[in-house]
Amino acid sequence: MIDRSIISAQNDALHDDLARDYTALGDKLSRRGVDIDAIKDRARRFSVAVPSWGTGTGGTRFARFPGNGEPATIFDKLDDCGVIHGLTRATPRVSLHIPWDKADPSDLRAKAEEHGLGFDAMNSNTFQDQPGQVHSYKFGSLSHTAPATRAQAIEHNLECLEIGQKIGSKALTVWIGDGANFPGQSHMGRQYERYLSSMKEIYAGLPDDWRLFSEHKIYEPAFYSTVVQDWGTSLMTAQELGPKAMCLVDLGHHAPNVNIEMIVSRLIHAGKLGGFHFNDSKYGDDDLDSGTIEPYRLFLIWNELVDAEDTPGLDLAHMIDQSHNVTDPIESLMVSAMEIQRASVQAALVDRAALAGYQDENDALMASATLRAAFRTDVEPILAMARLEAGGAVDPVATYRASGYRAKVAESRPKVSGAGGGIV
Amino acid sequence: MIDRSIISAQNDALHDDLARDYTALGDKLSRRGVDIDAIKDRARRFSVAVPSWGTGTGGTRFARFPGNGEPATIFDKLDDCGVIHGLTRATPRVSLHIPWDKADPSDLRAKAEEHGLGFDAMNSNTFQDQPGQVHSYKFGSLSHTAPATRAQAIEHNLECLEIGQKIGSKALTVWIGDGANFPGQSHMGRQYERYLSSMKEIYAGLPDDWRLFSEHKIYEPAFYSTVVQDWGTSLMTAQELGPKAMCLVDLGHHAPNVNIEMIVSRLIHAGKLGGFHFNDSKYGDDDLDSGTIEPYRLFLIWNELVDAEDTPGLDLAHMIDQSHNVTDPIESLMVSAMEIQRASVQAALVDRAALAGYQDENDALMASATLRAAFRTDVEPILAMARLEAGGAVDPVATYRASGYRAKVAESRPKVSGAGGGIV
Amino acid sequence: MIDRSIISAQNDALHDDLARDYTALGDKLSRRGVDIDAIKDRARRFSVAVPSWGTGTGGTRFARFPGNGEPATIFDKLDDCGVIHGLTRATPRVSLHIPWDKADPSDLRAKAEEHGLGFDAMNSNTFQDQPGQVHSYKFGSLSHTAPATRAQAIEHNLECLEIGQKIGSKALTVWIGDGANFPGQSHMGRQYERYLSSMKEIYAGLPDDWRLFSEHKIYEPAFYSTVVQDWGTSLMTAQELGPKAMCLVDLGHHAPNVNIEMIVSRLIHAGKLGGFHFNDSKYGDDDLDSGTIEPYRLFLIWNELVDAEDTPGLDLAHMIDQSHNVTDPIESLMVSAMEIQRASVQAALVDRAALAGYQDENDALMASATLRAAFRTDVEPILAMARLEAGGAVDPVATYRASGYRAKVAESRPKVSGAGGGIV
Amino acid sequence: MIDRSIISAQNDALHDDLARDYTALGDKLSRRGVDIDAIKDRARRFSVAVPSWGTGTGGTRFARFPGNGEPATIFDKLDDCGVIHGLTRATPRVSLHIPWDKADPSDLRAKAEEHGLGFDAMNSNTFQDQPGQVHSYKFGSLSHTAPATRAQAIEHNLECLEIGQKIGSKALTVWIGDGANFPGQSHMGRQYERYLSSMKEIYAGLPDDWRLFSEHKIYEPAFYSTVVQDWGTSLMTAQELGPKAMCLVDLGHHAPNVNIEMIVSRLIHAGKLGGFHFNDSKYGDDDLDSGTIEPYRLFLIWNELVDAEDTPGLDLAHMIDQSHNVTDPIESLMVSAMEIQRASVQAALVDRAALAGYQDENDALMASATLRAAFRTDVEPILAMARLEAGGAVDPVATYRASGYRAKVAESRPKVSGAGGGIV
Repeated sequence: MIDRSIISAQNDALHDDLARDYTALGDKLSRRGVDIDAIKDRARRFSVAVPSWGTGTGGTRFARFPGNGEPATIFDKLDDCGVIHGLTRATPRVSLHIPWDKADPSDLRAKAEEHGLGFDAMNSNTFQDQPGQVHSYKFGSLSHTAPATRAQAIEHNLECLEIGQKIGSKALTVWIGDGANFPGQSHMGRQYERYLSSMKEIYAGLPDDWRLFSEHKIYEPAFYSTVVQDWGTSLMTAQELGPKAMCLVDLGHHAPNVNIEMIVSRLIHAGKLGGFHFNDSKYGDDDLDSGTIEPYRLFLIWNELVDAEDTPGLDLAHMIDQSHNVTDPIESLMVSAMEIQRASVQAALVDRAALAGYQDENDALMASATLRAAFRTDVEPILAMARLEAGGAVDPVATYRASGYRAKVAESRPKVSGAGGGIV
Repeated sequence: MIDRSIISAQNDALHDDLARDYTALGDKLSRRGVDIDAIKDRARRFSVAVPSWGTGTGGTRFARFPGNGEPATIFDKLDDCGVIHGLTRATPRVSLHIPWDKADPSDLRAKAEEHGLGFDAMNSNTFQDQPGQVHSYKFGSLSHTAPATRAQAIEHNLECLEIGQKIGSKALTVWIGDGANFPGQSHMGRQYERYLSSMKEIYAGLPDDWRLFSEHKIYEPAFYSTVVQDWGTSLMTAQELGPKAMCLVDLGHHAPNVNIEMIVSRLIHAGKLGGFHFNDSKYGDDDLDSGTIEPYRLFLIWNELVDAEDTPGLDLAHMIDQSHNVTDPIESLMVSAMEIQRASVQAALVDRAALAGYQDENDALMASATLRAAFRTDVEPILAMARLEAGGAVDPVATYRASGYRAKVAESRPKVSGAGGGIV
Repeated sequence: MIDRSIISAQNDALHDDLARDYTALGDKLSRRGVDIDAIKDRARRFSVAVPSWGTGTGGTRFARFPGNGEPATIFDKLDDCGVIHGLTRATPRVSLHIPWDKADPSDLRAKAEEHGLGFDAMNSNTFQDQPGQVHSYKFGSLSHTAPATRAQAIEHNLECLEIGQKIGSKALTVWIGDGANFPGQSHMGRQYERYLSSMKEIYAGLPDDWRLFSEHKIYEPAFYSTVVQDWGTSLMTAQELGPKAMCLVDLGHHAPNVNIEMIVSRLIHAGKLGGFHFNDSKYGDDDLDSGTIEPYRLFLIWNELVDAEDTPGLDLAHMIDQSHNVTDPIESLMVSAMEIQRASVQAALVDRAALAGYQDENDALMASATLRAAFRTDVEPILAMARLEAGGAVDPVATYRASGYRAKVAESRPKVSGAGGGIV
Repeated sequence: MIDRSIISAQNDALHDDLARDYTALGDKLSRRGVDIDAIKDRARRFSVAVPSWGTGTGGTRFARFPGNGEPATIFDKLDDCGVIHGLTRATPRVSLHIPWDKADPSDLRAKAEEHGLGFDAMNSNTFQDQPGQVHSYKFGSLSHTAPATRAQAIEHNLECLEIGQKIGSKALTVWIGDGANFPGQSHMGRQYERYLSSMKEIYAGLPDDWRLFSEHKIYEPAFYSTVVQDWGTSLMTAQELGPKAMCLVDLGHHAPNVNIEMIVSRLIHAGKLGGFHFNDSKYGDDDLDSGTIEPYRLFLIWNELVDAEDTPGLDLAHMIDQSHNVTDPIESLMVSAMEIQRASVQAALVDRAALAGYQDENDALMASATLRAAFRTDVEPILAMARLEAGGAVDPVATYRASGYRAKVAESRPKVSGAGGGIV
């Protein structure tokens, strides 16, 4: 963990400038009729879950280039998550991936509590074969043609529910790699029916206070078709399963040019929006750091969420899902959490009464300008002040670097060497 | 109309070669256990509707370059449709567009009967302002913020129902240009609710034996968002409206890379596939001639349709929707109808028992090869024989050119000069 | 023209708040080692040309919905451009389109001088047929198979050079719609050779102090292939023509997902970047207002331009090219010019020494953060102060609205009614 | 190796039907003025190189699912390549990848000769770290900021030249993963200059009768920008390097919707087309089996190649580059080679005189129909007869399966278990 004294020393050095910037911004916002402290409180209430697997260096099918001090166990990963939350105060929950993170539940809870962390949605894995696994997922899992393979995949998901209950999770996210690489390889209709049938068995095992998230993706690892290819199929699935089944939107899982904020709006209309996997992308499921490629898109999504936040029953699970290939994962997760938080705060600055007026009058220019005015407000002083008051760091990356954390854990964690990806 | 003697002369010259090719193909197919005559009968039963507007030269926002003998009235257009059906025997119905095709219903019926034609789905138009129109559709129609504008658009659709009933149509296709060019211009949720509410009023006026087709499109003429942007929204709309509301798929209305045959399969699962607007595209809604850009994609869509053709309740409306900018529209519509027919016949040649076996065994290579074997069968002799036996032309384009039809109508139809498109 | 007193009244009301915000921002920037006045001077030096045709309401192939007070002549358009420049002080040049803007050159110059305007690049038009034109461009212009059609298109471009010389322009932009709608329609190699040959004739007529801009576009109005489809072909063309031939980049003319800032960097390397057509887009050549869809992309392009601004020989022509379908074109052009200016100023705030250091050390996270820190700086006070000091409006849109300009010109300009686009 | 007697037995059973189909097709083609035997000879002369790495099961970043009898060494791979060529007679050369295929050159040559195989282009690998490698390629190789890393990557490429010379290769293909995951991570201009400088050093070491292939790719493994992102950059690189540097086109390395056959035409114009990496794709660099997703696109590319085949100096290197994730790689490579061969033969059937006439007259409909008529000719009897006469199998997949080859090698090759990809 980062020593409190390091955080304080860093914060102290930045405090005066922050206070000045906060005051200037507060003055500006008050002229717009906005109370900066109320916005700051909103920033403090913001949280997004961190994926355990995101703490390790990611890779591509071509290669993986690990860094120093890679976490070797889920307990190492929880330590890293503790650092992330400690400095940003924005990531109080961790999302586990089974079987990668399998461990004694009481040990998991103890380690999490040590860092003030809780557990978010469970993630099952039926897109890889594990050592000793009886049936291969090479040709699918929940939608496989063989009943025994489907049963094995269902069983694995039920086990995730079991583990999750022991650690306080309340949701299961199901993402499968099932699909086809060739036209004709799978009968699309029957494949989907098998998938639905398997999902119904999982749903049947879902505790009453849990939710089941269906996650769509247009392609990869299957390159001709995927079983849950878009939000339409995800919606249809959630409708057939029942009220506890909801749709989860990963920002990188769409066709080029697709208007994601519109999908968000439609799923809200359908009463089926369950949550997000945040990341950014330029081409496909690039899994880049949130807010680094198209920050305005992230803002527009939050614009829909803030607009709808009083919708009865809307209860969203926000998670990060990224692959950190060329950065220190702790740094990327901290920055990403803060970029998502930034977008949520900017969206809260939208003058909604004015916007509604412009929309009613079809004043497209001023409506658009109203959104941009909120977006271009530099809310960094608000985010920093919220962190400071919550016990975090004004500048989490600088503080993290000053702490020498990575070098320290590198001493005890096993060294990992570079490796090829999945291609050969 | 094309003189019978011209058709016969052309057919006679081609007959012997056709007979030889038909026999050779029949021999080959019989070795695969396929009866060529049964396939030929299927080809004869095939039909696709022709859009009245497709008989005129189309254009882009930059320009339109009309040809000689452009049809000036709906009656000219029906004459052209008569030629198309006369030569191909594959297009027995015409789809009208209101108000472009407004005329005395009994005159319409008389002219259609003269050519042995019937009427397919009606198409309403609320994406343009007509002379004398009270409320502009500049900012939307069925989803407009102003109740009076919505009422006008609803009224127009109800009028389409009325006209359609008088000429024997059984369906209304609703495609709107409503959307937004700027983030913020429209409140996406409320805009969709207004659209739904309008559609419900139209649905309420729908005769019992009619169907209402909801057509989605990702963009154009709106360039940031459209109200019915994809099949997910179209499905949700059809679900909310009721059993007579179905989804219509235009092949050019999707995001890049989207797997359209999969959408077809999903809509069949949902019991909501209503029909198609056929065309081809490389970039956006290019409205190119069917089968000229990605013929295998067209085949894969038909593969799904043939596979599901015994599904209870599946009753599809097949229509062409293209823009013929650089060809004689009559020629393009004939060729397009035959390309769609070709794909349907090739799909009927798929060895479905073998395919199902390969799918069950996850023999992806042979499953894929099974589809390709059907696709690469040159079924031209089957199509030509079906046309010949039905009284059409073995080679419709050559026969049409030999007839001098276009030059003849150019004498009586008013000359139209080139014009700019919508940009200035 | 907008009365000076209206501008002053509006500015006076905003002055104190602006001064306060400018001071607060100056304080913040000085802590980063940035002199706000130097940045303000840069903002004042910024300029972008306005397209004459952009002052009229644009449309799509489906429809065009004109507004009140549409400019009827090039002189009306120059009046509108005068308003735009008068309020923003950022658009001192107008780009003409021939034959749309053909008029007596001395009248053009007189009207422009009245508004303190000059003329930017000339634009030729061989994508439409004009009344009385001998050869049609339906099947191409500079690359047409018929020598006479090519000669006519060349002649038109030479005429543009002639007109341009009389009004003080120094560049010709050539964009053609030539291409094909069907595979096979054109022989791609020979079509390009014909294009090159025509361009060489135009180049031969280019005055010594002029430049010829080659503009690429992936599709539309041709939907299978276009002759100058991408920057690779544009570069090859400019290389074959000679040193006065340069490449022009329109932001909406690329395939989905393409990294435009990288093309900018490559063309700078090649010594062939000539200028830009600014606009924004989500799907295709949407021609939306600059900076309204992906503002960070606009910033990243300017990041390349600011980085390379000391490159010997780099002399860029910046123009807006948009279609204003749902807004008052004057408002859209003002806002767009300011958004482009904003991006240029934000890019000037990038700490390039720090960035270079992070790049050398492969500190991807901090390099990326360095760009974002500049981007999220709200430079509105700088832009507004620059306008104020240059005699423009602090808030151009509000001032324009207060002036009642549109209503006034609507009294004298002919009323235009809505019309269909190019489809039928 | 597959026993001759197995091939003969399979061929004998198919011979009579093949002869009948060949005769019928010959009859049909002769009516078009085409000599089937001349086309068959062309089919026999066709060849495409096989990638050594393609004989192993591929994977994605999520997982790899190996099959039975995976090749463990380059000698196993050459055995598999021998089977592929033995049955198809279309793949007489193998392309090696260094360091994966490093071995004693004389052993390599001996094994290749055993199978009647030669060696095609060498492939270097600077996108992965190898055990013991001094400098990591995590942040680039030939364009790395550190001179020592670049020197190491250059040295590796020079070693590839050395190995290649010993085994009779005549070309080096350079594909690098260098790029960036974040805006700002790399200075795009300087990064490209470093790349060019490294390439010049490699080029300096190129033997006189060798060629250097530059291969572009829009993204992956870098997800924001890649150094050689498109054919424009590849062309510029080849121009700067010199006459032995050529551009290589991988069909899956482009932005969505890009017209690849047009790039082929442009590179032919520039005198810089060097060769291909064949595969098929629907979304990104999917590396699917050639001809299985968009067979008409493959045909259109071959249409350009056949059209230009008499261009002086045009000498193309055809290679397959695919990832076989769900099929037996030997089967996929056989089928892919035959699909590429099929497209080349179909393209040879295009009536070029008629096509040129239609193009000159702008008869788009008939020009397009001329291409489709060639494409839909089922040339399978030609391909099969060419194989038969060359000593191959009429039906390579059936013969391969009948031979039991995979089961046999599985007995001696080490078993490999499933594994995760690069993500964790």
